[in-house]
Amino acid sequence: MDNKQERTLAKDAPSLTNKEILLKGWVKTRRDHGKLIFLDLWDRSGLIQMVVNAKVSLEAYETARQLRPEFVIEVLGKVNKRPENAVNKNLPTGEVEVEVLKINVLAKAQTLPFDMGQETLDLELPTLLDYRSLTLRHPKIKEIFRVQEVIIDAFRDALREKDFTEFQAPVIIPQTAEGGAEIFAVNYFGQKAYLAQSPQFYKQIMVGVYERVFTVNKTLRAEPSVTTRHLTEVTTLDAEMGFIDSWEEIMDMVEYTIQYVFERVRKDAWQSLESHEASLPKISKRIPRVKLRDAQEIIFKRTGVDHRKEPDLMPEDEREITRWAKDEHDSELVFVTHYPVSKRPFYTYEDPKDPGYTLSFDLIGRGTEWLTGGQRINDFETLIEKAKERGVDLKKSELYLQAFRFGLPPEGGFSFGSERITMHILGLSNVREASLFPRDMERIDTRFSFLDEEKKPENKK
Amino acid sequence: MDNKQERTLAKDAPSLTNKEILLKGWVKTRRDHGKLIFLDLWDRSGLIQMVVNAKVSLEAYETARQLRPEFVIEVLGKVNKRPENAVNKNLPTGEVEVEVLKINVLAKAQTLPFDMGQETLDLELPTLLDYRSLTLRHPKIKEIFRVQEVIIDAFRDALREKDFTEFQAPVIIPQTAEGGAEIFAVNYFGQKAYLAQSPQFYKQIMVGVYERVFTVNKTLRAEPSVTTRHLTEVTTLDAEMGFIDSWEEIMDMVEYTIQYVFERVRKDAWQSLESHEASLPKISKRIPRVKLRDAQEIIFKRTGVDHRKEPDLMPEDEREITRWAKDEHDSELVFVTHYPVSKRPFYTYEDPKDPGYTLSFDLIGRGTEWLTGGQRINDFETLIEKAKERGVDLKKSELYLQAFRFGLPPEGGFSFGSERITMHILGLSNVREASLFPRDMERIDTRFSFLDEEKKPENKK
Repeated sequence: MDNKQERTLAKDAPSLTNKEILLKGWVKTRRDHGKLIFLDLWDRSGLIQMVVNAKVSLEAYETARQLRPEFVIEVLGKVNKRPENAVNKNLPTGEVEVEVLKINVLAKAQTLPFDMGQETLDLELPTLLDYRSLTLRHPKIKEIFRVQEVIIDAFRDALREKDFTEFQAPVIIPQTAEGGAEIFAVNYFGQKAYLAQSPQFYKQIMVGVYERVFTVNKTLRAEPSVTTRHLTEVTTLDAEMGFIDSWEEIMDMVEYTIQYVFERVRKDAWQSLESHEASLPKISKRIPRVKLRDAQEIIFKRTGVDHRKEPDLMPEDEREITRWAKDEHDSELVFVTHYPVSKRPFYTYEDPKDPGYTLSFDLIGRGTEWLTGGQRINDFETLIEKAKERGVDLKKSELYLQAFRFGLPPEGGFSFGSERITMHILGLSNVREASLFPRDMERIDTRFSFLDEEKKPENKK
Repeated sequence: MDNKQERTLAKDAPSLTNKEILLKGWVKTRRDHGKLIFLDLWDRSGLIQMVVNAKVSLEAYETARQLRPEFVIEVLGKVNKRPENAVNKNLPTGEVEVEVLKINVLAKAQTLPFDMGQETLDLELPTLLDYRSLTLRHPKIKEIFRVQEVIIDAFRDALREKDFTEFQAPVIIPQTAEGGAEIFAVNYFGQKAYLAQSPQFYKQIMVGVYERVFTVNKTLRAEPSVTTRHLTEVTTLDAEMGFIDSWEEIMDMVEYTIQYVFERVRKDAWQSLESHEASLPKISKRIPRVKLRDAQEIIFKRTGVDHRKEPDLMPEDEREITRWAKDEHDSELVFVTHYPVSKRPFYTYEDPKDPGYTLSFDLIGRGTEWLTGGQRINDFETLIEKAKERGVDLKKSELYLQAFRFGLPPEGGFSFGSERITMHILGLSNVREASLFPRDMERIDTRFSFLDEEKKPENKK
C-alpha cells in the first residue's frame, strides 16, 4: 500500500469499529454474491470476514474476482458492526466484517489441488504428506503443532521449576549406545560415525555436571518397518536426575511432569483439543504402579488370556491393563514396572530385592506406551561388568565411562517422543500426522517411489 | 543413610543453624589438619564447607580420610555458625560450616588426572576435551553452559513475546539447500539422504503456516578445516517472519532479540559473567547499519587499507568496522548490509534500488560475525528463475517450492549459532569451549588419532 498505515491483526478489528484498518493475510475462502464478494482472510491472530462491494470500490471488486484461496493480500478496509442476525458466534471476530476499500496482492497462489475449506481434510495420508507445505495450513492440522509446541514448552518449564538444567546433546556420535542394526551411519571425513538414537549416555554424563538435566533432541532410528507408530526421526524429550533415594522418585517426577504438561495443554490449547474432539487422559490422584508379572496375572484373571511367561506386554495386554487401571483406579494412565533384565539396556538397574527384574517402567495410556524410564547403574565396576555380560563394546564410549569413573550418584530418568504424546492426546490415528515433516522408510518429504519414477527417464538415456 | 531424613541443599543450610541436616553431593576438596578434616561439598545449589572432627565421630573421620575429589557422598551433620573471623564472604554459604556426624559413600571416584581445584583449569584444549565428562564439572566451565542455557531460553522467550511459534525442523533432508560439498551424507535404507546444514527451507515453509516462526536445531556442516571458530555440529537459533513492509524490520527484530538475550544474561547469569571477567557488548540506543561498500570506504579512509573491490569483509575489516562503530556510534555491534548477489544464497532478495546487491546483513561484534540474515525471494517465478541462474537443482525440494506455489508473503529472517554467541559474550578463545561435546574433523568425543593408535595392535595380528 502507498499509505504508511500500520498493520492491524484480525483479532484486533472488533475493537476498531468504524475505523479504517490495514489487514494482511491469506485468502482462505471467496464467496461471490453478485456485486458482493465475501472473503475470509487469515492472519496469525485468526480469521476475519471481509466484504467487497463493487459499489464501494470497483477496482477492489475487480481484484477480488481474481483472488483464490492462499493468495496473499493486504487490504485497506473499514470495520463495520454486523447486524445482530449476521453475527457469527463461532468466530472471535464474528461481530464485525470489514468493508474493503482497497486490495493489494502480495503473492499469488496456484489453483489448489483439493478443497482446503473442508472442516477436516479428507485426504489419504500420502497425499496429505505430498502436499505438506499446503496441508499444514489447514486450521485443524495447524492446531496439532500448536499442541506439540505447548507440550514441549511445558516439559521444559515443568523441569526447570524442579531445578533441572537444559543442555544440548549431540546428534553425531562415535558409537551406538546399545548396539543394534537400527542406527544410521554417517561418513565423517572418512571415519565412521553414527546418528544418536537417544541422548542417554550424554544425559547421564550431565548428571555429573548439573545433577538434574533435561534435553529436547532429534533422535534418529533406522526403523526397518512402516507402522502407524514409528518414525525414523523423532523429537525426544529426555530428563535425568541424580541423588535419588529410591527409583520411585523417578516415577514421581514423571507423574508431576505429565500432569504439568496436561494442565498447560488444557489452559493454552483447549481450542485445539475441542476442534479435534480430544480430551486429556484422566488421572485421579495418582497413576497406579504395577509390576509386569502382576499386570499379566491381572490380565489372566480378567480375560483368561495367559501371557504370564512373556517378557513384555503384548499390544492387547497394553489395552487390557489400561482398562483395568480405569476400572480399578479411575486412571487412564498406568505404570508397568519390573521388566526382565534381558528386555532392558545393559545399564538398567537390577532390583536387588527382585533379582532378574529391573527398576524400570513404562507409562501406558489409552492402550499403548507413552513413555519409558528407570534407574541406571551408577557404580563404575558394575557398569563395566554388565556391559561385558551383554556383549556391549564400550571402547569408543570413553566419555560415558568417565562419568562413572569419577563419581556419579544414584540416578535415573525418563524419555518420551513429542510426536507420540501429541498423537495420544489428540487421538490421531498415525504418528506421521503429529510430525511436521515425517521421515520413514518410504519418504523424506517426497516419496521415494515418486523420485524413482522421476529418475526413470534419465536412466533410459 | 538409615534414617529417612529429607535432603537439604547446600544453599539452604545457613537458614538451619544448629539443626541436623542431610546433605548430598560431590567432594570437591579435602584439607587435612591433624584430627580435623575440611571438606568442600558441591550440590546443584552450590558449595558448602564441612568439618570432620575425629572427636565427634571417629567413624566419619576414618571415612573422610578415604575421600578424594569427585567422591559422591551423603552426610548427616550439624549446621554451625562460623566465628566472625572465619566467615567466607565469597561463598553464599560462607557464614556456616557443617559439623559432620556421619558419612556414607554413594560412589567412589578414581584419582583425578589433574587438579580440578584450580580457579581456571590450566589444560591444553585436547586434554580438556579428552576428559570432557570430568572437566565439565569445573565451576568455570559449568558456567559457560549456564550462560548458553540462558541465551537459548531467552531467544525463545523474546520471539514468543512477538507472536512467533516454535517448530521442530528435521535433521535428515532429501537434498542440500544450497549445494556444496560441506554436507554429510547418510545411507537411508539404500537411498541417499543428507544432514541439514540449516533449517532455512523449513522455516520459510513454516511462514506459510504460522507467519512468524522460530526453531532451535542441530545443524551439521562438514567443515573440512580445523579453526577456532568452526564446529561440524552447531546448535542453531533460527527465526523467520512474514508480512514485512521493509527488510529493515528484520534487523529491528534482531536488535530486539539480541538486547532481550543480553538483558536476560545480565539478570540470570551475572555470576558467570563475573567469574569469566566478561561483559556484555555495549549498544547505545541503536546498532548502526552500514552497507558493505560504505564500510569498505570507511575502512579505507581510517586505515588506508583498500578492500573496496572485495565482495566480503576480510577478518581485519571486521575488526576495523567494529572499532569504527565503537568510536562513532558508541556501539560494540554493527550491521553490515548489502552483500553482493554472488556472495549470498540464490533465495536472497536483491535490492531493487541497488541492483547487484542483496537485502542481507551480518551482525558484526567484537571483531567477528555474530549473526546473519536478510529478506528472501517470496515470488514463485522469481525463485525458480534465480535457482536456475545459479545452477541450483530444486527437483527434490518440492515441499519448499510448494510454499511459494501456494502463496508466501514478503518475508525474511535470521540465524545464529548458540556456541559462537556464547563464545563472544564470555570472551572464550575457541568455539569448542562453548560446545559441551564439540565435533570437528579430528574428534567425536575421543580423538580419532587416539582411536587409530588403539587400533594399531589389532591391525598387527
